Amino acid sequence: MSGPTIAFSMYAGLEAAAFRPGHLDRLAALGDVLDPLAVESLPPERAAAVLAEAEVLVGHWGCARLDVDLLDRAPRLRMLAYAAGTVRDVVTAETFARLDRVTSAAAANAEPVAEYTLAAILWANKDAFAERERARGIDVPRPVRRRPVGNWNKRIGLIGASHVGRAVARLLGPFPHLEVVVSDPYLDEAGAAALGARLVDLPELMSTSDVVSVHAPWLPETERMIGAPELAAMRDGAVLINTSRGALVDHDALVPEVESGRLTAVLDVTEPEPLPRDHPLLHLPGCVVTPHLAGSQGTELSRLAELAIDEVERWATGAAARYPVTAADLGRIA
Amino acid sequence: MSGPTIAFSMYAGLEAAAFRPGHLDRLAALGDVLDPLAVESLPPERAAAVLAEAEVLVGHWGCARLDVDLLDRAPRLRMLAYAAGTVRDVVTAETFARLDRVTSAAAANAEPVAEYTLAAILWANKDAFAERERARGIDVPRPVRRRPVGNWNKRIGLIGASHVGRAVARLLGPFPHLEVVVSDPYLDEAGAAALGARLVDLPELMSTSDVVSVHAPWLPETERMIGAPELAAMRDGAVLINTSRGALVDHDALVPEVESGRLTAVLDVTEPEPLPRDHPLLHLPGCVVTPHLAGSQGTELSRLAELAIDEVERWATGAAARYPVTAADLGRIA
Repeated sequence: MSGPTIAFSMYAGLEAAAFRPGHLDRLAALGDVLDPLAVESLPPERAAAVLAEAEVLVGHWGCARLDVDLLDRAPRLRMLAYAAGTVRDVVTAETFARLDRVTSAAAANAEPVAEYTLAAILWANKDAFAERERARGIDVPRPVRRRPVGNWNKRIGLIGASHVGRAVARLLGPFPHLEVVVSDPYLDEAGAAALGARLVDLPELMSTSDVVSVHAPWLPETERMIGAPELAAMRDGAVLINTSRGALVDHDALVPEVESGRLTAVLDVTEPEPLPRDHPLLHLPGCVVTPHLAGSQGTELSRLAELAIDEVERWATGAAARYPVTAADLGRIA
Repeated sequence: MSGPTIAFSMYAGLEAAAFRPGHLDRLAALGDVLDPLAVESLPPERAAAVLAEAEVLVGHWGCARLDVDLLDRAPRLRMLAYAAGTVRDVVTAETFARLDRVTSAAAANAEPVAEYTLAAILWANKDAFAERERARGIDVPRPVRRRPVGNWNKRIGLIGASHVGRAVARLLGPFPHLEVVVSDPYLDEAGAAALGARLVDLPELMSTSDVVSVHAPWLPETERMIGAPELAAMRDGAVLINTSRGALVDHDALVPEVESGRLTAVLDVTEPEPLPRDHPLLHLPGCVVTPHLAGSQGTELSRLAELAIDEVERWATGAAARYPVTAADLGRIA
């Protein structure tokens, strides 16, 4: 067998869900899979031996942090092929100094998040979540809307042209009656137009959108970017969707806006996460909270695995990475 | 003003929601709008005078039934441009005998129903509706699934290549990892392939689909077509979506399947409709019931109005109808 030596790193026990037999077959055809179990699942001596030999590390949730200590134990390591959404807790400056290539499956993980968001938009615009509660006999306030319900002639505001923001814009393409505006400090008008969207600043987005969907990364400068003033600027009857990170939204400011019925919300992420069982956002009928499930789950892990294996294949065949992460990305990884 | 004389028929008071000022302007440019109010909103004498003059009747929910009695009072009537979903309660054999053209906005009304269905598929495949309940502290049984959750490598079975079924197939186009199968006695393999779907018979659809979505018309031969045997054939953990008519599904047979947690359901239509407030399907956490809102609502009424006005324009300019309804359709209108 030529090709690189390959090892896995993830939570012990995740292997079978993350990589199906067909995926392992593909990797075995590309190189020398040192052990089908992650180093976290192996006895310490065996883990040390695998790490000492590995040239490619295929990572997933719970992947070892590639700091100096770990890298010293993996002196032959050249590539990290991360098969999940964000490498922010895995990579360090030292990772990029020692490895030749780091790739991420964030682009693939964006797909299910965007699908969740599309569905949330389509149902929220019809007030379907609240109508379900009303059908059960629960009193859900009917906000004074600027416009009637419906998925026609509505404006969708996407905060952040991230992988997810871009995927949402693409999925909204077949719905020409949903106008898409996007706000992102790193995007220009041509970039927005390429997404089928119009570039606006955040105040315009907040005050003119029927649905505001948060897709910015969690960074020091984005914490609580959706605070009381931004929420107050939203239209009566507007919808806030957050699938990014709870830290971006001031939940204390959101509660009274939902409680009054002025805004509704669909939150896949919260702060804290999970919310305490008695938190009002869990029980207000105008708020839908799901437990951080928009990202890849179940069968969707195959999409991540396939992207990561494609990257291992590019590495093994001398091709350029399709989804590289570089040291320059360190401070702005979502 | 040349062009036909135009009248409206719908529930009194619906006019402003159904037709915006721009719509009335378009109609006024095409012909002589006898009265901007529906005949149902007019005093009897005025209504009689308008009916006596009308050549084109623009109908909407609550439109007068075009039976012999009505047609005798509207001797000049040549066209019905129906601006809502189904003309089954409006037209009679006599309608087609006396009028030259009947058109329906069923194709336009299919769009929001298909959007609702797409959203229901995307959320149900992630078990997101149940996860919301679990996040609130409600115990939702976790069915033994044939496959893990997720919108990857799942089969969607569409019962009926109706306007809605076709629109759902089209909206599923951007999701190549959701395989679409369709069952319809009037569809052949080439027709299914044109929808991006594969033709199967109903038993295969019921027993192999992860999501079964009902889009067949309500006819004597489709009543309770989804009965106890069909439900029993569904996969463990599968999802039933109904946006057609409640009569197509045996609700008594559905209750135990949802109660046990074996199946989940998203029902926009029920039998009876609405369900009594204490009906188990309203309160079982594995069932989402919305109050018949998937069709056009609010802003979506503009889509219907525009289709109907396009048809009036075709009539007025001598062009063929795009969405005609004929006497031959009488027995199979949804």
